[in-house]
Amino acid sequence: MIIILKPNPAPQQLEHLKDWIKKMGLEIHISEGQHSTILGLVGDTSVVDIDLIGAMEIVETVKRIQEPYKAANRKFHPDDTIIEIGNAKVGGGHFFMVAGPCSVESRSQILEIAQKVKESGAHALRGGAFKPRTSPYAFQGMEAEGIKLLLEAKKYTGLPLVTEIMDLSHIDLFEEVDIIQVGARNMQNFLLLKELGKRRKPILLKRGFSNTIQEFLMSAEYILSGGNSQVILCERGIRTIETATRNTLDLSAIPVIKELSHLPVIVDPSHATGYAKYVKPMSLAAVAAGTDGLMIEVHNNPGMALCDGQQSITPDAFAGLAKGVKLIRDGMMKEQDL
Amino acid sequence: MIIILKPNPAPQQLEHLKDWIKKMGLEIHISEGQHSTILGLVGDTSVVDIDLIGAMEIVETVKRIQEPYKAANRKFHPDDTIIEIGNAKVGGGHFFMVAGPCSVESRSQILEIAQKVKESGAHALRGGAFKPRTSPYAFQGMEAEGIKLLLEAKKYTGLPLVTEIMDLSHIDLFEEVDIIQVGARNMQNFLLLKELGKRRKPILLKRGFSNTIQEFLMSAEYILSGGNSQVILCERGIRTIETATRNTLDLSAIPVIKELSHLPVIVDPSHATGYAKYVKPMSLAAVAAGTDGLMIEVHNNPGMALCDGQQSITPDAFAGLAKGVKLIRDGMMKEQDL
Amino acid sequence: MIIILKPNPAPQQLEHLKDWIKKMGLEIHISEGQHSTILGLVGDTSVVDIDLIGAMEIVETVKRIQEPYKAANRKFHPDDTIIEIGNAKVGGGHFFMVAGPCSVESRSQILEIAQKVKESGAHALRGGAFKPRTSPYAFQGMEAEGIKLLLEAKKYTGLPLVTEIMDLSHIDLFEEVDIIQVGARNMQNFLLLKELGKRRKPILLKRGFSNTIQEFLMSAEYILSGGNSQVILCERGIRTIETATRNTLDLSAIPVIKELSHLPVIVDPSHATGYAKYVKPMSLAAVAAGTDGLMIEVHNNPGMALCDGQQSITPDAFAGLAKGVKLIRDGMMKEQDL
Amino acid sequence: MIIILKPNPAPQQLEHLKDWIKKMGLEIHISEGQHSTILGLVGDTSVVDIDLIGAMEIVETVKRIQEPYKAANRKFHPDDTIIEIGNAKVGGGHFFMVAGPCSVESRSQILEIAQKVKESGAHALRGGAFKPRTSPYAFQGMEAEGIKLLLEAKKYTGLPLVTEIMDLSHIDLFEEVDIIQVGARNMQNFLLLKELGKRRKPILLKRGFSNTIQEFLMSAEYILSGGNSQVILCERGIRTIETATRNTLDLSAIPVIKELSHLPVIVDPSHATGYAKYVKPMSLAAVAAGTDGLMIEVHNNPGMALCDGQQSITPDAFAGLAKGVKLIRDGMMKEQDL
Repeated sequence: MIIILKPNPAPQQLEHLKDWIKKMGLEIHISEGQHSTILGLVGDTSVVDIDLIGAMEIVETVKRIQEPYKAANRKFHPDDTIIEIGNAKVGGGHFFMVAGPCSVESRSQILEIAQKVKESGAHALRGGAFKPRTSPYAFQGMEAEGIKLLLEAKKYTGLPLVTEIMDLSHIDLFEEVDIIQVGARNMQNFLLLKELGKRRKPILLKRGFSNTIQEFLMSAEYILSGGNSQVILCERGIRTIETATRNTLDLSAIPVIKELSHLPVIVDPSHATGYAKYVKPMSLAAVAAGTDGLMIEVHNNPGMALCDGQQSITPDAFAGLAKGVKLIRDGMMKEQDL
Repeated sequence: MIIILKPNPAPQQLEHLKDWIKKMGLEIHISEGQHSTILGLVGDTSVVDIDLIGAMEIVETVKRIQEPYKAANRKFHPDDTIIEIGNAKVGGGHFFMVAGPCSVESRSQILEIAQKVKESGAHALRGGAFKPRTSPYAFQGMEAEGIKLLLEAKKYTGLPLVTEIMDLSHIDLFEEVDIIQVGARNMQNFLLLKELGKRRKPILLKRGFSNTIQEFLMSAEYILSGGNSQVILCERGIRTIETATRNTLDLSAIPVIKELSHLPVIVDPSHATGYAKYVKPMSLAAVAAGTDGLMIEVHNNPGMALCDGQQSITPDAFAGLAKGVKLIRDGMMKEQDL
Repeated sequence: MIIILKPNPAPQQLEHLKDWIKKMGLEIHISEGQHSTILGLVGDTSVVDIDLIGAMEIVETVKRIQEPYKAANRKFHPDDTIIEIGNAKVGGGHFFMVAGPCSVESRSQILEIAQKVKESGAHALRGGAFKPRTSPYAFQGMEAEGIKLLLEAKKYTGLPLVTEIMDLSHIDLFEEVDIIQVGARNMQNFLLLKELGKRRKPILLKRGFSNTIQEFLMSAEYILSGGNSQVILCERGIRTIETATRNTLDLSAIPVIKELSHLPVIVDPSHATGYAKYVKPMSLAAVAAGTDGLMIEVHNNPGMALCDGQQSITPDAFAGLAKGVKLIRDGMMKEQDL
Repeated sequence: MIIILKPNPAPQQLEHLKDWIKKMGLEIHISEGQHSTILGLVGDTSVVDIDLIGAMEIVETVKRIQEPYKAANRKFHPDDTIIEIGNAKVGGGHFFMVAGPCSVESRSQILEIAQKVKESGAHALRGGAFKPRTSPYAFQGMEAEGIKLLLEAKKYTGLPLVTEIMDLSHIDLFEEVDIIQVGARNMQNFLLLKELGKRRKPILLKRGFSNTIQEFLMSAEYILSGGNSQVILCERGIRTIETATRNTLDLSAIPVIKELSHLPVIVDPSHATGYAKYVKPMSLAAVAAGTDGLMIEVHNNPGMALCDGQQSITPDAFAGLAKGVKLIRDGMMKEQDL
């Protein structure tokens, strides 16, 4: 961290600042120029509140050099985190495919889709029971009943479950859920993150639709710093000036996150693009960019889905997508052998 | 709502669609062109899920003509909503000034600030007890203890309180809080909004930093449709490409919201700009744009604030700001007499 | 400028870097920590190409402390720039009101509007002869003929002219134009800026709809560094996630620019909001935020305008707006006397 | 196009509107509801100026159903456009690889890089002679001398040239240039586009960094409607809230453009990401998303490049990238055989 002071700082305030920094166990390197004095802070600055320093009267500006996260930081944890889910793994070269409907709608619907995506090679079943909807008048999910049906589908197919929690008060319903999803709108629901940090269960953390990668990793840090090391990151598009797709899938986030963090990162092209027709090309692109997995919305009858039918593909289309993914992954493996 | 069908829609699917629309109590006007058929839906379309229709196989595109909110809509509620808080009012020409520190830090701090902002004409005291912070290592607020100190300040000064709720599990602590604030990051925490819709207490709903005005009004609709008519909207800046200010204060939102909705709307220039030096000009601008109130961060010692010191002004600066606001409001009143 | 080196930089490359910096006349302060070495550059760093340094193998990161512009920088030019146009002035407390149609459509149209806005107190007449239009099929302006009609209106009313140049090849047509406007889409047309830097005529530079304030000032720097000191900046909205207005008017840009630069800055609420109904409130807000002027689209028959009719106000509405502006300015002046 | 009228439109104005529409050769379908009247326009609406209609007093709102471009529209030109450049082709399954330095710096530099990228399979050489730079103090390119050196490199290697035009006044220098590039900042320099529409030479049109795909296609329309059918589109990232990369590469734009238009589309991952380390993964991702080509910045000594060294890869890294691209393309071809 670099602190640039205003010209002629009050000596007493400067001493105060220096003491405060030293109390945090940091070393200070001072560089005095003709026009400005620069303090270089050396040590673990991830716990320093940059805003506190910036507000001080004698400070012109303060800039962070090191990342403000530690547990999520690859520098302190060079090896890829690998998370086991049922018989599958994600991270460290293991590819993880999640598929299922936007929301659970009925017993027959979820059982049929679960069986079909399993046959095409999915490692886990997704399905929403609690649905965050912009309108209070839209279908809000089957709630507890939906969780029950998902558990039935798990029993029937053996597929682990991924489903979204919207509020801590529902946590007891998620006892047998294999991966708890935190949705994009809850990415900065810090109390929820803290509580999930106390659990010992994989958390699928979706990127907020207007959050930077750094904020994304800070939210992962909330869970990790609580002691839960099983965080799977999920890129699902950010809000931009483009309107041809629902959001803009930020595939550059994959190599960026891989560089900054050891956590596995998967991609949800269904929510990102918002249209079934773009799901396959963006899935293949995500694989070529190095994603550790995909999460795909699959519906047996997209035209009749109670939610997000426009972005759902059929089980047959999913089978085709899975084959395409395999071919690109084969190409990627040969590429890594070069 | 206008539905444009693909050429040669399957007759059975078209019948199904028409039946479904009629069951919602809507009338259909059909316009058949050479190349496309258009269905015009007439009636209360706010409850129609536009995504469901868009996903149908025979549908080319669907566009909403009416707003998707009803309780928040000025068309169905032409008069300004006026909300009483203590002896003050907000909306319908009543101007409401909230001031106080970002977070409660100590008994002496909150009592001193409360007293000073009251003297300068503030109608309510703000202060955070639960603080949503990007980093798990930053100060998270005094929590329950902070609420206690706020209540003491209320008793001491008579000022009504505005403070933020971060999770429903804390609701009992807010019994004596006058206005419950929903922060920008919780604007789409729909379960929280639903619960607050069951209360009979003013809710200060802050706009999410990357949410449109329509989404903002949809979130208000969650509260209103639950039966709680006391919603105060708060514009606090949106995330844009500009980095000279923390966010970009969207003052156009004021006349836009005034046109679309009957709810009062206030402005928070402190969080929007992120710098104390821009708080006054943006406060005056907000007044000239027609805001129903302001929410200003005031700290007795900004350089030592535990949170957001950079954007806090001193009690003296607040006194100057309040005088400036008065002068602009005087100009505005003469202007309305023209 | 602060350069943070990677650990253990190759000594030869470090010497090369230091020599290169010294050759630019800059001093270097070195701060060696355990983990990293920091170089602090002291002197006029506005001419240093930060990207060149960032690309060097031994450099971890480089951060600018000083602004990369000099001629536009208030630090080197503390007094407000005041520009004279006809009998009017802009900057340094002088308020400048420009009004007129989006595009010149006919002799009678421009003469009528010119006369009316003059009566309401406008200091200059705007009107487009060359129109940048997204579609090749839209009306592209009356071109040379439009300039002729504008000159006639100038002769008739005595109002100085503001009109947009789209390409350097047209420059001869602008001989008698008082203020040459550079449109938002040309804000980074650097060859055009350089040429205008050679003229001795006021340039109205509009902010690009997705450019930061720093980029805006860098474009002004192109003109100023060529020797033309008469640059008027114009904020006209930026592209954001909000769609209720055409762009989002960034009024915070006014106090920010006033702090960073000595140049006058005016506001165009017509293009920013895109709707006539929001022009007046945003004009008043701009005045309260401290703008040095306004540029307003006025049309004698907005419903029949060949371009941007939706955002044009009538001459009567303009008269009302001008009165409102006066009242807010009166309030502002009293405010400054406090 | 759908026009929704306000309730009780003035009959005379309605007649005027209907006459005006019919004069453009369009049919009108009227649908009268209880609350609103809807006009459906049938025919070629690409030439209708939607803003003119929206400004009319009797019009509530107007929405476009058909795209506002025609020459660029796949609906009217279902087959892929294939453009020949030297011995190579782009579009319709032909993959086109462009490589070279950000800017020409010297004879030896451009000859060396040209030779090396040719050996690795590049089909064309890029290199900037005129450089648009944010700062007037940064290196602005070798200009005419740079073009000369590029032509020498062409003669030496046989590689066709791609280089950027910044102003029409330079056009004579581009006589022997094979593909004229229009940079992101000039995407809406409509006079330049019009002039290039009169030439019979391939134009590489880069997407503006804050322009939508529709605006991108409208700019292509300017060139195409002038009679020049050889337009290559280039996605190069858009400005978003993410700062870890220079821009956000919008790979979804590839399948979207492929659906809407017949024009070839290539990707520039160097400018999009801004960092050499992300160029390869994003190149592979672009291939998997279906791009028709890539444009890669290659420099023999990135740490000493006069411009954009941070995003340039070495000739060796380019050779590796080209092999990786081949492997992914092999996977893609097997995928299409499924």
